[in-house]
Amino acid sequence: MNNLLDNISNPSDLRKLNPDQLPQLAKELRAFIIDIIATKEGHLGASLGVIELTIALHYLFNTPNDLLVWDVGHQAYGHKILTDRKDVFHTNRQLGGIAGFPSIKESEFDAFGVGHSSTSISAALGMAIASNLKGETEKHHIAVIGDASIASGMAFEALNHAGVSDANLLIILNDNAIGIDPSVGALKEYLTKVKTDKKLAAQNNIIKALNFDYSGPVDGHNLPKILSELKRLKSVKGPKFLHVITTKGKGLQQAEEDQVTYHAPGKFDKISGERIKKEESLYTKYQDVFGKTIVDLAKQNERIVGITPAMLTGSSLKFMLQEFPKRTFDVGIAEQHAVTLAAGMATQGLIPFCNIYSTFLQRAYDQVIHDVALQNLPVVFCLDRAGLVGEDGATHHGVFDIAYLRCIPNLIIFAPRNEIELRNILYTAQLGLKNPIAIRYPRGKGNIIDWQKPFEAIEIGKGICLKEGNHIAVLSVGTIADTVSEAIILSEKNLDKLSPNSLIAHFDMRFIKPLDENLLHQIFEKYPTIITLEDGTIKGGFGSSILEFASKYLYKNNIKILGIPDEFIEHGNTLQLQKNIELDALSLSHLIDSF
Amino acid sequence: MNNLLDNISNPSDLRKLNPDQLPQLAKELRAFIIDIIATKEGHLGASLGVIELTIALHYLFNTPNDLLVWDVGHQAYGHKILTDRKDVFHTNRQLGGIAGFPSIKESEFDAFGVGHSSTSISAALGMAIASNLKGETEKHHIAVIGDASIASGMAFEALNHAGVSDANLLIILNDNAIGIDPSVGALKEYLTKVKTDKKLAAQNNIIKALNFDYSGPVDGHNLPKILSELKRLKSVKGPKFLHVITTKGKGLQQAEEDQVTYHAPGKFDKISGERIKKEESLYTKYQDVFGKTIVDLAKQNERIVGITPAMLTGSSLKFMLQEFPKRTFDVGIAEQHAVTLAAGMATQGLIPFCNIYSTFLQRAYDQVIHDVALQNLPVVFCLDRAGLVGEDGATHHGVFDIAYLRCIPNLIIFAPRNEIELRNILYTAQLGLKNPIAIRYPRGKGNIIDWQKPFEAIEIGKGICLKEGNHIAVLSVGTIADTVSEAIILSEKNLDKLSPNSLIAHFDMRFIKPLDENLLHQIFEKYPTIITLEDGTIKGGFGSSILEFASKYLYKNNIKILGIPDEFIEHGNTLQLQKNIELDALSLSHLIDSF
Repeated sequence: MNNLLDNISNPSDLRKLNPDQLPQLAKELRAFIIDIIATKEGHLGASLGVIELTIALHYLFNTPNDLLVWDVGHQAYGHKILTDRKDVFHTNRQLGGIAGFPSIKESEFDAFGVGHSSTSISAALGMAIASNLKGETEKHHIAVIGDASIASGMAFEALNHAGVSDANLLIILNDNAIGIDPSVGALKEYLTKVKTDKKLAAQNNIIKALNFDYSGPVDGHNLPKILSELKRLKSVKGPKFLHVITTKGKGLQQAEEDQVTYHAPGKFDKISGERIKKEESLYTKYQDVFGKTIVDLAKQNERIVGITPAMLTGSSLKFMLQEFPKRTFDVGIAEQHAVTLAAGMATQGLIPFCNIYSTFLQRAYDQVIHDVALQNLPVVFCLDRAGLVGEDGATHHGVFDIAYLRCIPNLIIFAPRNEIELRNILYTAQLGLKNPIAIRYPRGKGNIIDWQKPFEAIEIGKGICLKEGNHIAVLSVGTIADTVSEAIILSEKNLDKLSPNSLIAHFDMRFIKPLDENLLHQIFEKYPTIITLEDGTIKGGFGSSILEFASKYLYKNNIKILGIPDEFIEHGNTLQLQKNIELDALSLSHLIDSF
Repeated sequence: MNNLLDNISNPSDLRKLNPDQLPQLAKELRAFIIDIIATKEGHLGASLGVIELTIALHYLFNTPNDLLVWDVGHQAYGHKILTDRKDVFHTNRQLGGIAGFPSIKESEFDAFGVGHSSTSISAALGMAIASNLKGETEKHHIAVIGDASIASGMAFEALNHAGVSDANLLIILNDNAIGIDPSVGALKEYLTKVKTDKKLAAQNNIIKALNFDYSGPVDGHNLPKILSELKRLKSVKGPKFLHVITTKGKGLQQAEEDQVTYHAPGKFDKISGERIKKEESLYTKYQDVFGKTIVDLAKQNERIVGITPAMLTGSSLKFMLQEFPKRTFDVGIAEQHAVTLAAGMATQGLIPFCNIYSTFLQRAYDQVIHDVALQNLPVVFCLDRAGLVGEDGATHHGVFDIAYLRCIPNLIIFAPRNEIELRNILYTAQLGLKNPIAIRYPRGKGNIIDWQKPFEAIEIGKGICLKEGNHIAVLSVGTIADTVSEAIILSEKNLDKLSPNSLIAHFDMRFIKPLDENLLHQIFEKYPTIITLEDGTIKGGFGSSILEFASKYLYKNNIKILGIPDEFIEHGNTLQLQKNIELDALSLSHLIDSF
């Protein structure tokens, strides 16, 4: 079947084809992706949308010498398959397999590692300036960026710089009017007008105003047209901009029709496109616990508003949007704006629940410090996908937040142990807190069926004892408490019931800040050995805060701190990753046994 | 003289004047500011440029009920004087005096605290949305933002959102074509065209394309014109945008002519405008040590490039711009772009020295993690103004960097003890490092006259012993070593020469990461008591890293960690601030004596 694709390992092979063979290759490449993603899962829609563009770029440009940067990277499956990774594509996103995003470690064709959005123009401009300085004036530097990503501030900063440079930079706007959720904002509306109004496109539009040689819009699924336009642009020096219109999910009917779901549809039938339903779980995703709880709370408290930077579906804030459209704000990929918008709202007495993935709050770090914490405004940060996130890998693990938030004065930091605690802290956060609070919780399901209990307020700064013991105390924060419980069961089985070490204590400290110092004094006075466990970086994290406490009060207990080691963690199933870094129950149990 | 101003404490008084008295008031307000800043110092040019606008806003709008947000806040002196702070204006930026920036703690007229740029539109939009939800539909929400600040990504994110909102938001672009240094970028060039080309202003310009009711450009020094335009806009609902042209430094000839210097000119003669020269110092600012050294290095190594986000003068990268204009990049207020641009350059073998103030690197935190450290690209971050910065206060202290950088894998973190160490680490950083490095150094002068010694490479991860002792060892990083030396002299004077504690050891660990574990083992084996000192947050900082080391290797020494306490530090002379938080030599000496 795949007569053409079978013979293509990399762009050198591709370039041997005639241009009129390329539409056939596009068909084959789509089928190849659909075939594998149908069973192996992954991001589908974005890659299907840029198949023709991917082929055209590698066909016309001299990659990897010419440098090609994919923004975010969800759309780079076709690129990976055409650049030496066809045979390993089935290992996508698995431990030891290829990454779900471009990565400079993985291939020389991946000019820049991505995962977070809106970096491509800056990176490609840096490369283009470097080529200029090195006298490599014939080299091409290409950034492919979506319409959701280009509306992020960082991309604008790069456009603003590129427009006054003489860098040999080609920016390709892959305009499909959707990110993961539909794109939002004034720029999106404007781009939509440009698409339909040729006069506007020809006129002094925004992109031209920023000094670019603008061309388009071009039908991104029409290979001859893209080829001819790219060929023309190859000979244009300086910064240039090609506006390409594509359809996310192109070539699979369901993916075109339900673009949000088919962004990453899970398993599906490769012929019919129908999604294969997973077995119904009794348990609820933490995301839905958040989404359903905020709706419950918003019904009771009209001061509550919800904010998400482009993660309506992922965060489940969509539930609130459905019930309270006027109080729910998807601001696009704009974490910085999201946080300061929340701060502005909080000055006027609203209670903004600002839901941002832990890894993306890194984008708004200054705003958390300067606009929220410094003014002590009671914004509620809901840090979704804290800890290891699994298959999305190194770019997406939410492991830095404890360390980077803990140094900020005024901020409360809480990690719920389970669904009920998440629900209750969300409730507590809107009772009139005087401080901002960050609530970090993981990706995925909990393990309590009946979590929708009546609300109970949580006392700020109060940890709890889950289990008393006699020699060793394990202190944890967040859902990793389950790992501790499991480890304790394993260890206590092995221990001599009569030994003085036979019972292991377990405390859920809950608040990383403020620490429950009263409880800690009790713990330090009773237990000679203390182990801390967290799914955040070991450097500067919760464990460090316990060391700081011990130092402050001159305790000399043995303290062993466990957490994410000082290295970037790759992609793979979360349980496998935990084992690899010895953050699993068995490893913890061995450690306990060693004392 | 100040007949009108004498009788004005706040906007209620102002509103009693006739419109034709306002130009006279503008004169008096300018004279008042010049008079005080001439002797008390502060930011001059920005406030002189918006005197008419300030008067017009408070005259026409019902502040503080109508909410007025000044971006950055350098320009808010007139605002402060007209809002109950005339009598304390002479305490500006001093310890216990009023802050140099608007602050919600200081006055109800300061709707939002500022200091870092480009937050005003997000904050005011948040306020405007809050008013809508509360049914306060007559309320006005105004953001005044400069042309340098509006080019920052965060401001674009806010524009992109505001343009599709129905918020009652007025954005005033204070366009003077300069930030601290002259503005840069494609947007600036475009705005300059709009100023001179009325057709372009009237057409579908960038701002209109983002859905705003654009008006202007208006002469910002013509009170009747501003008043009439603002009056008209008061009755326009929804998001609107007024483009005002002003001259930075307006009303003081030298300040108009040399806008960079008169941004914050130091003391000057209020009549002639001539700056009063400070006594020549024998010592050099760390900024100039950086600026001169990078020129020396760039002469030897053509792979070096310099990048600053809008701090050419402040960072002294201007020296490099003068010598190597093609290798020096002022990207405007665009920290995110600056870092990823550097990453892109580094992939192509350049060695980017990316100079960003410690407090502003908070704006590019994600880019440091995701684009630089994750890919282990050898970007050199020069973190200027680390530690307490003095009169700029809470928004500008560079005290979080150690904590927020220490958790990032692959990153080297170094703090030079003096000018020679800064010079040598800059030299070392371009010798082919395999990792990114962050070099943090303070604002202000060092104390070595003859620092321009031949370069010497510094071994990565190597601390040094400055002084041996017999019981207590003090470990420091950075220029705070001077405080330690002073404290040790004070303490040793008091100590019984024959006592076993009589000599205090001092180690400059230099590298916060990687720690010199060999040296630490020697220290922990010899000294029962260890004190750490840093001018960064005590939570998660260098001291914590020493606690982590001790925990890892089971050391039970007494460890006392000293640093910036867990609170925001206000403005004032740095020495005074250090005393307040007991980070001065005397306090340290008392602590040493207590052991």
